[in-house]
Amino acid sequence: MALKFRPQSLFVIPEGELNHSSFMKIALAQLNFFVGDFDGNVSKMLLAVDDAKRQGADLVVFPELATCGYPPRDFLEFDDFIRRSERAVLKMAEAAQGIAIVVGSVSRNPVVEGKDLFNSAYFLEEGNIKHVQHKALLPTYDVFDEYRHFEPAKEFKVVEFQGKKIALSICEDLWNLGNENPLYTVVPLDEMMPQKPDLIVNLSASPFNYEHAKSRIHVLRANVQRYGLPMIYVNQIGSQTDIIFDGGSIVISPDGNIFEEMPYWEECVKTFDLQEVMKGGRNMEQPKDKIALIHDALVLGIRDYFGKLGFKQAILGLSGGIDSAVVAVLAARALGEDNVRALLMPSQFSSDHSVNDARKLAVNLGAQYDIVPIEPIFTKYEETLKPHFLGYPNNVTEENIQARIRGMLLMAMSNKFGNVLLNTTNKSEMAVGYGTLYGDLCGGLSVLADVYKTEVYQLAHFINKDGIVIPENTITKPPSAELRPDQKDSDSLPEYDILDAILYQYIEQRQGPHEIIALGFDEATVRRALRLVNMSEFKRHQAAPVLRVSPKAFGVGRRLPIVGKYLS
Amino acid sequence: MALKFRPQSLFVIPEGELNHSSFMKIALAQLNFFVGDFDGNVSKMLLAVDDAKRQGADLVVFPELATCGYPPRDFLEFDDFIRRSERAVLKMAEAAQGIAIVVGSVSRNPVVEGKDLFNSAYFLEEGNIKHVQHKALLPTYDVFDEYRHFEPAKEFKVVEFQGKKIALSICEDLWNLGNENPLYTVVPLDEMMPQKPDLIVNLSASPFNYEHAKSRIHVLRANVQRYGLPMIYVNQIGSQTDIIFDGGSIVISPDGNIFEEMPYWEECVKTFDLQEVMKGGRNMEQPKDKIALIHDALVLGIRDYFGKLGFKQAILGLSGGIDSAVVAVLAARALGEDNVRALLMPSQFSSDHSVNDARKLAVNLGAQYDIVPIEPIFTKYEETLKPHFLGYPNNVTEENIQARIRGMLLMAMSNKFGNVLLNTTNKSEMAVGYGTLYGDLCGGLSVLADVYKTEVYQLAHFINKDGIVIPENTITKPPSAELRPDQKDSDSLPEYDILDAILYQYIEQRQGPHEIIALGFDEATVRRALRLVNMSEFKRHQAAPVLRVSPKAFGVGRRLPIVGKYLS
Repeated sequence: MALKFRPQSLFVIPEGELNHSSFMKIALAQLNFFVGDFDGNVSKMLLAVDDAKRQGADLVVFPELATCGYPPRDFLEFDDFIRRSERAVLKMAEAAQGIAIVVGSVSRNPVVEGKDLFNSAYFLEEGNIKHVQHKALLPTYDVFDEYRHFEPAKEFKVVEFQGKKIALSICEDLWNLGNENPLYTVVPLDEMMPQKPDLIVNLSASPFNYEHAKSRIHVLRANVQRYGLPMIYVNQIGSQTDIIFDGGSIVISPDGNIFEEMPYWEECVKTFDLQEVMKGGRNMEQPKDKIALIHDALVLGIRDYFGKLGFKQAILGLSGGIDSAVVAVLAARALGEDNVRALLMPSQFSSDHSVNDARKLAVNLGAQYDIVPIEPIFTKYEETLKPHFLGYPNNVTEENIQARIRGMLLMAMSNKFGNVLLNTTNKSEMAVGYGTLYGDLCGGLSVLADVYKTEVYQLAHFINKDGIVIPENTITKPPSAELRPDQKDSDSLPEYDILDAILYQYIEQRQGPHEIIALGFDEATVRRALRLVNMSEFKRHQAAPVLRVSPKAFGVGRRLPIVGKYLS
Repeated sequence: MALKFRPQSLFVIPEGELNHSSFMKIALAQLNFFVGDFDGNVSKMLLAVDDAKRQGADLVVFPELATCGYPPRDFLEFDDFIRRSERAVLKMAEAAQGIAIVVGSVSRNPVVEGKDLFNSAYFLEEGNIKHVQHKALLPTYDVFDEYRHFEPAKEFKVVEFQGKKIALSICEDLWNLGNENPLYTVVPLDEMMPQKPDLIVNLSASPFNYEHAKSRIHVLRANVQRYGLPMIYVNQIGSQTDIIFDGGSIVISPDGNIFEEMPYWEECVKTFDLQEVMKGGRNMEQPKDKIALIHDALVLGIRDYFGKLGFKQAILGLSGGIDSAVVAVLAARALGEDNVRALLMPSQFSSDHSVNDARKLAVNLGAQYDIVPIEPIFTKYEETLKPHFLGYPNNVTEENIQARIRGMLLMAMSNKFGNVLLNTTNKSEMAVGYGTLYGDLCGGLSVLADVYKTEVYQLAHFINKDGIVIPENTITKPPSAELRPDQKDSDSLPEYDILDAILYQYIEQRQGPHEIIALGFDEATVRRALRLVNMSEFKRHQAAPVLRVSPKAFGVGRRLPIVGKYLS
């Protein structure tokens, strides 16, 4: 596990204050789980239980599907996987001595009709499972596939503990409020209100995007305002391949104030006195800057990908351009500069500044770099293919060969030294297919493919804010793939500020051609951009997993036909 | 469109028999649609309407989501796409003059709560939309994502036509019967029975796998037996990238006999007299041979992929091995031998028979082939990397370089000549990761990655059944990747009959290690195989789309974490 459990970040209630009130003390355990690592996840939770006890907590709350990790995906189709989840819950129940535990896990549907599983919150007390509440709203959109595996809850019961009635809910169960077009016909907490609960506890695994923290607070507040009850909301942190969880667990007072917004990007166990929470009047909302959030999310995404896979070192190609420069910095921040290895692969079309800028960056970072010119290999390919290409003019084929030689050299280094190749494609390129399959699209993880080119510039400025890491020339020169003499991105593509604005409307906002043209964009440019996006689906299908930081990333959350005629 | 509309396959009711009974005549229109091609789909349906009229039909039934094609996936999130679907329905309604039409399309949910769309069957008569019945059971498993987009029907109403009450249903609506563990808590036709329908009409887009035709008949019969009503079941044919529809539309008499099973793998419009259907006693069930079905499905899959993308010619590497040989034959059958181009790329590790066997196959097929030895390029890579690899022994890196040179040469040919590279990896290799990313995993379409190695042999024998196409030596020699001297697949992997049996239990049957070991397999072999499968998820994530012929194919129907600890 890449992120260490951090006891130093724990908020310990001073001893003198323990047991002063009859009000419940509730610990929120915001942890980083690993899908399928039952032993690891349980061990980590048992440490957190001990911690919560030391903090004087009566109850400790873990996130959604904490035993098996989230998202478990089709592992849920294996009975063996379910049995292991059940054993994990029993181990947690054993630990529920002198403290009650709420933990998310899978449970079986005893009714033969319907899906075989529920996504459940277990209430554990004195060694036993005291109560189980299933999730009712099963997100099945974007990156979510929950109805694929789970039956929705049809029963809603509060659980009593220390004289209080707790309304248990799971993630999406809260999300049918606060928006004009609710996705579901049921509001689970409405169903519980006749039982007069005293507080709401929500177990979440709510994936990050740069807008999500704000939406989350909006939705949680909508719930608090509707019911007038305090809200204990526990989220995961950590990255699961492409999906990143930001933490930021929240305690809200009945007056709608954020009593606490827990740290982002780190594990934390923290205990709150319900009496204090009830009082309200304290607003601890944290600032949220889009580019800072993206930066931190990408660093965590890289760190967890490597940590959970058991790799230490990254390799990447440095072109002298801004995308690879930003990825190199993020990788160094995630893994340490000693664990980033760079390859500079100039060709006959590379400008002098490319190698210089790339070298300068590697030196600034303190990362190991090698220079491997690709011309000799390129020439050998040309010789080999010459008899077969007779009469055919040079075209994109030769550009792709260069990109693929670079991909192959990087993969050879990756194979030989046991490191992982980071892909440096940005979202604008990935959208319109401005990249070579098996060439610059190679890599184990795509760091920037959910960050538009214009946002990559913002990230570069953010990185340089306290001193120059990325060479200025890298930021100021016009973008170029340097695959033929004097090539510029703008030869083939609209300027990035225009292109990105169009892509945002199409990808994030799901606007069609008419709607986008009506916003004032040039019709031919819009139609060409949308066509390029749809025709590039085959490339994205074979691309590396993309760290998701936007509300609509390429990958599992965006599912489009490869062979389709719509706008293509 | 690759498959031509075939009027010669139409069953025309002889003129003398027209209008002899007061019973309804119903045409089943089993067509090949193209996702997002509204104009093309409507034009094709209008031709079929004319045909049905000529056949004397009172009613013509088209499949599920015929206007927009199936599966439309996230195109459904675009209002523009929905508007086009709506316009397509209106055009079909205009054509409903002198004949009624049932067609599948999208409709909007007027209620703000719940998903915004329904998957609907439109009953069109005299220029108008007379009735709309929504789908209630939304498959959300394997390749299906319907709850991602659709709200389930809550109202069930029969539609009256020519004095008969028709129970309209859509695909999965029938599938909650006939199995011991039903996925849903509702049986839609049960809800309609109080209205006393006279017949059941089902609009389907039911993807092929080699077991599916049998399951389908089982399920349809279970419905007919429960209700004692005739069943008109209309399926699509055609391939949508990875998902293949086989046709085989069915008419079942109330006595449970298959009155007609329409052709597989071709478009067809055929009219039936309901009176005759009611009589029963006629069983026209077609034979179903697993390997023949797989063969035909793969041929259709290749043909439609190329036809719908607008490509004519395929390229592939011929190694002399069985996988590439089978793919070459299937491609020649799908596209014509003039449209298959082969590349033979021997290295210093290739045996003489490899080139000979490959050449023999190309000659047998009449396909163009070129020989491009890879050693000169390989040597240049070695020279280039030598200073960086000092002190590191030769390992899989050098094997991967060979595989990647081949991938690059194929892609260069593909780019230069505008053809599409067919990938030749089989399911056994794809499962355990016995293949090189960006090397032999390259390609636009993966033809055999849902066919286990043992099944590839069966396909080869099937292909050779009327005369040798694939050289005998290709079939009889031991499989080898030929990436180092005297290499055999069996050096690294269990024998394929054992490996495939274990993989089948794990992948198709979702059995865990304990269950598989309990079947009598060696524990270490099982654990190693399962570990290899789970650790190769990153390779499959970047693989080409796989033509789906089994009940559990790699790709969109099998969703597993890339970074996961379970059995890895």
